[in-house]
Amino acid sequence: MKEITEIQSVSFVGSGNVATHLAAAFKAENIRIVEVDCLHHDHAVDFAQRYNCRPVDRLQQLSAEVDLILLCVPDQQVSVVSGQISPGRAIVAHTSGIEPMNSISEHLPRKGVFYPLQTFSKNREVDFSVIPFCIEGDRKEISETLTTLAYRLSNRVVSVSSPERALLHLTAVMVNNFTNMLYGMASEILEKNHIDFSLLQPLILETALKIEEMKPFEAQTGPARRKDENTIRLHLELLKDFPHYQQLYQLITDRIIKKHHE
Amino acid sequence: MKEITEIQSVSFVGSGNVATHLAAAFKAENIRIVEVDCLHHDHAVDFAQRYNCRPVDRLQQLSAEVDLILLCVPDQQVSVVSGQISPGRAIVAHTSGIEPMNSISEHLPRKGVFYPLQTFSKNREVDFSVIPFCIEGDRKEISETLTTLAYRLSNRVVSVSSPERALLHLTAVMVNNFTNMLYGMASEILEKNHIDFSLLQPLILETALKIEEMKPFEAQTGPARRKDENTIRLHLELLKDFPHYQQLYQLITDRIIKKHHE
Repeated sequence: MKEITEIQSVSFVGSGNVATHLAAAFKAENIRIVEVDCLHHDHAVDFAQRYNCRPVDRLQQLSAEVDLILLCVPDQQVSVVSGQISPGRAIVAHTSGIEPMNSISEHLPRKGVFYPLQTFSKNREVDFSVIPFCIEGDRKEISETLTTLAYRLSNRVVSVSSPERALLHLTAVMVNNFTNMLYGMASEILEKNHIDFSLLQPLILETALKIEEMKPFEAQTGPARRKDENTIRLHLELLKDFPHYQQLYQLITDRIIKKHHE
Repeated sequence: MKEITEIQSVSFVGSGNVATHLAAAFKAENIRIVEVDCLHHDHAVDFAQRYNCRPVDRLQQLSAEVDLILLCVPDQQVSVVSGQISPGRAIVAHTSGIEPMNSISEHLPRKGVFYPLQTFSKNREVDFSVIPFCIEGDRKEISETLTTLAYRLSNRVVSVSSPERALLHLTAVMVNNFTNMLYGMASEILEKNHIDFSLLQPLILETALKIEEMKPFEAQTGPARRKDENTIRLHLELLKDFPHYQQLYQLITDRIIKKHHE
């Protein structure tokens, strides 16, 4: 079977945020979207109409002629879903941060990973050109082909092994999900006191931009960094109605103090 | 004594990041910088040269003719420092997030707060026009005068009481210092494994930008949001060499799960 060196056609399994944004980007690059299969057939029909492709009912019906089958399904489904795909010439790649490449079923001869390191939301536009793509392939030719494809969408493409990708996913959860939880905590406290959360937005943005120029360790400021026990005590008092947040405040503060003063 | 309705001249106490950035902004607005006093006289001399003003040795020497004396000193020093200023016509305002206005010594007849809600770093330029200024005055005329001054630097000026400002300061610590600590945690884990932290930067920026359009609660995604116990378990395993981070991971994850699933 001849190796595929250039992806000209793609089929999707899944039609969520990742699939939707990638499909739009592929379309803009004149990469043909052939088929889509989803757990819910009406989602597939929807997606098919939008990207002018064919909705299929069963994974076994995915065309044997497509270059790439992209699994945009929840992490835990990569293994089951890939197990139902008929082996063919297509590269089968998943887009998960945490799943090892080998979660893709053993019976498929060409496996890979095509993981865009970003958070995707339904109604927010995505500029793929700045999004790092983490690529893996079970053969050099496959990772090269996926790398070439990723470079059509983005300026930053890196070769990342499954264990490395798991660490990127873990830390992505920290800087995205956990950071957002801190925003939520702040917003809850301010709302309860009728103070406008948007007052914090310039600070939030500056915090994110600052570490493009300096390391987080150097960028650290604030009462814990200064070991300013007076302010820390005042803050903990202000949190007396939020015992869980008090605990979190104490834990993070302790870590910063340990890091910078021990 | 006639009320000051327009600030045309300012003296600084302190010459750190806040003083430096404010002085530059005042200068650009043709507001005269008259004097500076610091704990370290050579810092005062330095600052004086840069902003073409007079370094003074003792707080008592601050001119009686200046419109505004701005205290840019560590929070705990507001009270002591202001106690040494001779009462005069000047408004004396501090720039602290956490100190109540009344930390300014009782013997001074015109007190206020001029608090820019942002993190300032030595070598990063500041665009004051987008930074919210939180203003307080112990008389209506004083808060009006400080508000007018703030509007010369910024498009966003709000009247904020001392207790409200303390909550803004607390939540600023969360979204800035604590968020930066999460960045540091991610950077440490990746560096230890020779993975480039800058791969996370587009995600960090998007996380910050996203909440300009949606509430943090709605923007929440990730394994804890989905209650995806499999991924959470994998992440906790990856953190086995970082017990403190494991604890933090667990605590934040529990909060997100409680918030979204209970």
